[in-house]
Amino acid sequence: MNYRIIVRTLGFILLFEAVFFLVPAITALCYQEEEIFDFLASMLLCAVLGGACMLVKPKSDSMYAKEGFVIVALSWIVMSLFGALPFWFSRAIPSYVDALFETVSGFTTTGATILPSGAAIEALPKSLLMWRSFTHWIGGMGVLVFIMVFLPLSGGRNINLLKAESTGASVSKLVPKMRSTARILYLIYTALTVLQFVLLVFDMPVFDAINTAFGTAGTGGFAIKGDSFASYSAYSQIVVTVFMILFSINFTSFYLILCGRLKEAFNTEVRTFLGIVFAAIALITVNLCLSQYGYSIGEAILHSAFSVASVISTTGYATANFDLWPAFSKTILVLLMFIGACAGSTGGGMKVSRVIVLFKGATHEMKRILHPRQVKKITMDKHVVEHEVVRGINGYFFAYILIYIVSLLIICLDGFDLVTNFTGVAATLNNIGPGLGAVGPDGNFAAFSDLSKLVFIFDMLAGRLEVFPMLVLFAPSTWRK
Amino acid sequence: MNYRIIVRTLGFILLFEAVFFLVPAITALCYQEEEIFDFLASMLLCAVLGGACMLVKPKSDSMYAKEGFVIVALSWIVMSLFGALPFWFSRAIPSYVDALFETVSGFTTTGATILPSGAAIEALPKSLLMWRSFTHWIGGMGVLVFIMVFLPLSGGRNINLLKAESTGASVSKLVPKMRSTARILYLIYTALTVLQFVLLVFDMPVFDAINTAFGTAGTGGFAIKGDSFASYSAYSQIVVTVFMILFSINFTSFYLILCGRLKEAFNTEVRTFLGIVFAAIALITVNLCLSQYGYSIGEAILHSAFSVASVISTTGYATANFDLWPAFSKTILVLLMFIGACAGSTGGGMKVSRVIVLFKGATHEMKRILHPRQVKKITMDKHVVEHEVVRGINGYFFAYILIYIVSLLIICLDGFDLVTNFTGVAATLNNIGPGLGAVGPDGNFAAFSDLSKLVFIFDMLAGRLEVFPMLVLFAPSTWRK
Repeated sequence: MNYRIIVRTLGFILLFEAVFFLVPAITALCYQEEEIFDFLASMLLCAVLGGACMLVKPKSDSMYAKEGFVIVALSWIVMSLFGALPFWFSRAIPSYVDALFETVSGFTTTGATILPSGAAIEALPKSLLMWRSFTHWIGGMGVLVFIMVFLPLSGGRNINLLKAESTGASVSKLVPKMRSTARILYLIYTALTVLQFVLLVFDMPVFDAINTAFGTAGTGGFAIKGDSFASYSAYSQIVVTVFMILFSINFTSFYLILCGRLKEAFNTEVRTFLGIVFAAIALITVNLCLSQYGYSIGEAILHSAFSVASVISTTGYATANFDLWPAFSKTILVLLMFIGACAGSTGGGMKVSRVIVLFKGATHEMKRILHPRQVKKITMDKHVVEHEVVRGINGYFFAYILIYIVSLLIICLDGFDLVTNFTGVAATLNNIGPGLGAVGPDGNFAAFSDLSKLVFIFDMLAGRLEVFPMLVLFAPSTWRK
Repeated sequence: MNYRIIVRTLGFILLFEAVFFLVPAITALCYQEEEIFDFLASMLLCAVLGGACMLVKPKSDSMYAKEGFVIVALSWIVMSLFGALPFWFSRAIPSYVDALFETVSGFTTTGATILPSGAAIEALPKSLLMWRSFTHWIGGMGVLVFIMVFLPLSGGRNINLLKAESTGASVSKLVPKMRSTARILYLIYTALTVLQFVLLVFDMPVFDAINTAFGTAGTGGFAIKGDSFASYSAYSQIVVTVFMILFSINFTSFYLILCGRLKEAFNTEVRTFLGIVFAAIALITVNLCLSQYGYSIGEAILHSAFSVASVISTTGYATANFDLWPAFSKTILVLLMFIGACAGSTGGGMKVSRVIVLFKGATHEMKRILHPRQVKKITMDKHVVEHEVVRGINGYFFAYILIYIVSLLIICLDGFDLVTNFTGVAATLNNIGPGLGAVGPDGNFAAFSDLSKLVFIFDMLAGRLEVFPMLVLFAPSTWRK
C-alpha cells in the first residue's frame, strides 16, 4: 500500500475543499450573514491541513486498483468530515453527527435530511443552503474527477480513480487521454447546469434557480423551501422533471449526440431507462385517477411524472407527499428506488444497465435449462457482455443486498415501523433522500439514534461509491503488506 | 416435446391422488362424517380420468430436461386442481379459487390459509383437516419422488424428474440407482414422521398428533386449532421446534449419519444453518426480554425458538403472534423467511447453500478487485463450486426476485398496506404461510381478490418447484417444435 500517495491525494482534496468553501462564503458576503466567519474558519483549517499533507512526497508513483479504491473512499470521508464543519460551527446543526449526516447526504447527492421540513429549512442562513446545494453539484460528477480536470494526478494511472468514483458497471474512455475525458464530462455537466439555471431564472429568484440547478444536476434533492418543490409553478416543475431525467442518462450519450452518433447514444440502457420512466408515469397516473385521489388528470400526470423522475433519478425533490398515495403507486416508487439511473450519470441506485444484465442472466439460465447444448453468451448492444462483467455485477448485487440487510438489522433497533426502516435504508443506500413512513417526503431522519445515523452515513457513501470502495476499507487484506 | 409421456405421467398422478384420498376418506369413516361422499366422488373422478390418461401409450421413452420440468410443473398443477375438489364439493370452502388456494398451499407445504383463524378452523370436519395435513406430507418430499418409489417411470431418465422436483441447487444420487435413492429418502422421511408422532401422542390426542406430525414433516404449517400451536403444552412445543429444525436439514445428511459419516453430514450448509438458527433465537430472545414484552426469560426463549424454527424451516406454525413483537425481532424473522431451509430438505425459501454461494461470490468479487491477478475458484466443503453452478444460482436468484416484484405489483392493486403486501408475497413464494400485517399469524389471505389469489397460487408453486419449472411453462420456446 502506497500510503504517501494516499496522504498526498487527501491533501489535494482538502485544498480543493478550501476553494469550494468560497461559494457559500461569497453567498454569505452577499447576504451579509455572520456565517461567513464559520466558512472562513473551515477554509483556513482545510488549507492548513491540506498544505501539511502536501509536504509528504511519494517515493513512487505506483497506484494500483487497491490504492484507487482506498483513496476514493477516504477522500469522500475526509471531504465530508470537513464539509460538516460550517453547519456545526454555526450551530445551525448543533450535533456533529447530524452535521456529518447532512454533509454526506449532500456530497453523495442523497438529499436525506435531519432538518424538519417546513419553516426550519427556510430559516437556515442562505449561505448554508447554498453550501448544501453546492455539495450536491460537487458530489454529482465526483470530486476526484473534478481534481483530474485541473491537475495531472500521479502519472497515467487515473483510470483506477475514475473507475472507483464513477457510477455504473464500466468506465469507458471517451477519448484516449483520461484527463480529456474528465474535462469533457465536466463541460457537459456544467453546460446542462447552466442551461437549467437559465430556464428556471425566468420563473424564480436567482438564488432559488442556482440552488435548484445544483440540486438537480447532482440528482441531489436538498430543497430550500419547506415544502420541497410543491410551491413552485407548473412550468418550473416541468423543467425540473425534464432535467432530473436528463441528469439520469449516461453522460457518454450526450457526448455521442454532440458527435452526431445518435444510434450509439440511444443504446439499450437509455432506451430501457426511458421505457421504465414512461411506463411508471402512465401506471401511477392511471392509479391516481382511478383511486379518486382528488387530482385532475393534468395534476395526476404532473405529480406522477415529477415523483417518478425524482425517485428513479434518485434526486428526491417532491411536489406531493407520495407517502399518502395508494399502495400500487407507492410500490412502483419503491421499486424505482432500487433500479436507479443509468450508469455514468450523476444518479444513484443499482443502475439500469446492471438490472438489464441481471435480467438477461436469469433468462439465459432458463434457456440453458431448456436447451443445455446451445450455450450462448449474454450480449448487449450487439457486444458480448464478458463473463467477468456478469460475475462482477452478480457479486455487486449480493454485496449490495448484504449491506442493505446488515443496515436494516442495526437501524431497526431504534424501534420504528418496518416501512420506515425498509425504505429509510433503501433511500440512503440508493442516494434518493426521502423514503416512506417517518422518513417520507414530509418527514426526516432526525429521530434516529446516532448509531443509526452513522449506519445511514455508511450506506450513503457505499451507495454513491458503488459498494466496493467502502467495503475494501474494512477488508483486512487491504491493509496487509 | 414428448406429449404422450406427459399425459401418461399425469395419469399416474391422478391414480395416485385417488389412493391418497383414502386417508381422509378413512378419517371420515372413523368420525362418521358425511364428507366421505365428497372424498369418494373425488376419488372416482381421479380414477376414471387417470385411467383414461393411462390408455395413451408413449411412442418413445425419451424424456429430456425440458419434458422433466414441464411434467413436474403440470403434475403439481393437476394434483392441486383435483385435490381442491373435496373442499369445494363439501361447501366447506364455497369458492373454487379459495379451495385451490388452500390445496396448493397444502401441497407446496406453505400453510397459508383463506380460513379465518379461531373457531372456523376447529369447526371444519376432521376428514378435511386430515386432508389438509396429508397434502403437506405428500408435498414435502415430492409426489413424483413418491411415485418413483413404487413404479419404474419411463426408463432410466428419472434424474430429470427428481432434479426438477427436489429442493436446492443440486441433486446428488445417494446410491447409484435413482429409484433406490428415492426409497431411502422416503424411508428416512417416514421414520422421522413416525418418531415425532410417537413423541407427541403422549401429550395430545392421536388425531392431533398425526396432523401435527404430517404438518411438521412437510414443513407445512396448517394448524388444526384456532390458535395454531399456542394452546399445546411446552413439551409439545419443544418437540415440534426440534422436528421443524430436523426437517429443514438436508436428508442426505441423515443418510450420512446412518452410515457413520458424521463429518460429511455436518457440512458447511448444515453448520451455517444451525449457526443462523441459534444466532436468531439468541437475538430475538434478548430483544424480547429487553423490550419488556411481558415474557419471562423461559417464555421468551420458548417463543423465539419456536418462531425462528417455524419461519426458517418455512413451516408456519405459531405459538405467539410475532406480528406484535418489536421491529428488530420482526425484521430478523422477515430475513429468515428469505433464507429458508437447507437444500434437499422439505423446507422452502432460497436455501442456505444458495445464500452461502451468493455470499462467497460477493467476497470473491472483492478479492478479485483487490488482487486482480490471483483468480481462485469458489469452494465449498473443499470442493470447487463449478462456474455453471454459480451462474445457475445467480440466474435463479434474479428470476426469484423478478417473480417477487411482478407478484407484488399485481397484488398491491388490492390496496392493502405495504407490510401486508411485501410479506404476503414473501410468505407464499418462500412457502412459509403467515406473513405480517393482515396476513400475520392472526390473519389470513381471504380478503384478497381472486386475481391476487391466483398470483399467490403461482408463487407457492414457483417457490416449491424452485422457480424454473413454472417459468418454463410460460416460455414460448418450450412449446415450439
